[in-house]
Amino acid sequence: MGAQKTLLQAFNQTTYQVAGHSKRDIRQLQRIFQEVDGDLAADVYGSGEVIDNFQNKMAKYLGKESAVFFPSGTMAQQIAMRIWCDAKGIRKVAYHPLCHLEIHEEDGLRKLHQIEPVLLADKDRVISLADVLGMNEEIACLLLELPQREIGGQLPPYEELEAISHYCREKGIRLHMDGARLLETLPYYQKTAAEVCALFDSVYISVYKGIGGIAGAILAGDAAFTKEAIVWKRRHGGDLISLYPYIIPADVCFEARKDKFAEYYEQAKELAGLYNQCHGISTRPTVPVSNMFHVHISLPKERLEPILLAVCEETGVGLSHYVREVDEATSYYEVSLGDRYATIPKEKLQNVFQVLDQKLREALQA
Amino acid sequence: MGAQKTLLQAFNQTTYQVAGHSKRDIRQLQRIFQEVDGDLAADVYGSGEVIDNFQNKMAKYLGKESAVFFPSGTMAQQIAMRIWCDAKGIRKVAYHPLCHLEIHEEDGLRKLHQIEPVLLADKDRVISLADVLGMNEEIACLLLELPQREIGGQLPPYEELEAISHYCREKGIRLHMDGARLLETLPYYQKTAAEVCALFDSVYISVYKGIGGIAGAILAGDAAFTKEAIVWKRRHGGDLISLYPYIIPADVCFEARKDKFAEYYEQAKELAGLYNQCHGISTRPTVPVSNMFHVHISLPKERLEPILLAVCEETGVGLSHYVREVDEATSYYEVSLGDRYATIPKEKLQNVFQVLDQKLREALQA
Repeated sequence: MGAQKTLLQAFNQTTYQVAGHSKRDIRQLQRIFQEVDGDLAADVYGSGEVIDNFQNKMAKYLGKESAVFFPSGTMAQQIAMRIWCDAKGIRKVAYHPLCHLEIHEEDGLRKLHQIEPVLLADKDRVISLADVLGMNEEIACLLLELPQREIGGQLPPYEELEAISHYCREKGIRLHMDGARLLETLPYYQKTAAEVCALFDSVYISVYKGIGGIAGAILAGDAAFTKEAIVWKRRHGGDLISLYPYIIPADVCFEARKDKFAEYYEQAKELAGLYNQCHGISTRPTVPVSNMFHVHISLPKERLEPILLAVCEETGVGLSHYVREVDEATSYYEVSLGDRYATIPKEKLQNVFQVLDQKLREALQA
Repeated sequence: MGAQKTLLQAFNQTTYQVAGHSKRDIRQLQRIFQEVDGDLAADVYGSGEVIDNFQNKMAKYLGKESAVFFPSGTMAQQIAMRIWCDAKGIRKVAYHPLCHLEIHEEDGLRKLHQIEPVLLADKDRVISLADVLGMNEEIACLLLELPQREIGGQLPPYEELEAISHYCREKGIRLHMDGARLLETLPYYQKTAAEVCALFDSVYISVYKGIGGIAGAILAGDAAFTKEAIVWKRRHGGDLISLYPYIIPADVCFEARKDKFAEYYEQAKELAGLYNQCHGISTRPTVPVSNMFHVHISLPKERLEPILLAVCEETGVGLSHYVREVDEATSYYEVSLGDRYATIPKEKLQNVFQVLDQKLREALQA
């Protein structure tokens, strides 16, 4: 605990940080709301200009008939699964073993919706067409996460996505996208959001990851689907009297960043290149396919932390505020490129990787 | 539709409004956040100073070991019911036929938690000790709403509340408070929040009704209860990355208004008196026991609306922005006293009731 806290503290004292958009402080909200007309009426239980306009904008952007703003992706995705299960009368869905619903939601899908997941693919790779073809069980819905966050943001080839979509339509299996980071995949796929979404029956996107809002999610699909989703949103306790404190930042940040994901993607490839030149480091994927990747380092967590801390203090540049254990010999952390990267002077960046490489070399020789 | 929209428009153009605190516009949030230090860190998934401090403050105020901030009361209360049902191994709870869970939550309690409610008391009165003693079914939890909103904010005598609490403890029935408007009841009961809460095992309060925040709720109980509630909050999709856009307004508004409820209560009694002097009007309750009451008027909705609209335009004072039908001959609306009432000049208030009475008299003679 002590060591990790100290890395966070050292990170917070650096002048530059390599990943992300900005600090998560109250100023983010203050700045956004300074620019908004105070006379704008609050949304009230899902109605009003502020929520209608953003939902319509996102439906259009995603190429879907309708979209609903949710306080969280957890709520939006469980509800999507429930709607497709109820429609088919089967309480089974398939997803990746490292799916958000499987590892981050305290088993909400089972405990609230009595839905059993079928886990497809191995933990270290994305779901393939062969995995889907090889399924023995009848399912209502297949969930694909684009990109697969827990393995560094990997993506299937686009042709494989199309083949999976085609197969699901033939078999009457609903295809749902966990597109928490959908916009982040578009520069690699060289597609519009609507083109990718056309392969799916329902789509969730987060408004606070690459988009950089405060919290919230969009769930999109056809009008019959979103009509049901709104009923379930009330059941879940997500139909708040006013969601504008999240909707307005989502809208402002979407407009500010929707065309910046190609830049983040190029920066991610550059940064992964710098990491992969260091001793004992490999990124996953080696060449990123979005704005994100994982940094795997051949040192145990307790030996890596003091090194990253020293790098913060010597260079004034923060690489990561935390380290996670992979096993006794290896650790990792996640990097998602955002607005901050472009603010770092090139020589600072060169320097931080020289210092890091030197320290890792010494540590690995010890 | 046309007529009701016009009443709302006329109401929105008045100089003074009798009920509530202020308009629901973006300015509310802007004003509150202007005063906050921008360096304050956002809460992250239920952790951080901003959420800890407010939860601790509310736990202390309610006299409970622990408190959890929720995005909504709908979520908080279903979760309280689920925890008590799981603890007892019985999927039944008892509440009033006009309980929020029964009429405003799209059946979430049944659809998400498979909990069956037992409805106690008649629709037009609060749950009595006799209702509780007369229950035939075994239940895990009894929910009491203080005050009972849908019947104008009625309250049981405090001694009856104590007797119900005593009986439930003896029988191993958990007692939960829907205290959406708990602070509003304290001047009538002449008790502290902690004294009333001591009769209950778990308590929910809203932070945006009398307190006047933007959205959100507090669920309080012992530490084992709130620990479980936090797990369920994640399952429901309520563990947002940051809830500070609701927590900070809740805190600011709690501090600003926690000592004003006696004033609102006195104003409610005065205002109900003015209403009851008018032809064809009776308030429910006749003498309010909180800051709220319902105004029942012996005219059908479609005849009352143009009268209220004309009152708006002639006096510049808005009494209500809507009317609901009771039956073919009677309509009603709800009034909750807040900051606005004290801003209305006395002569304006006298005048609006003279005009209203005159118009009702004419209408009732027609």
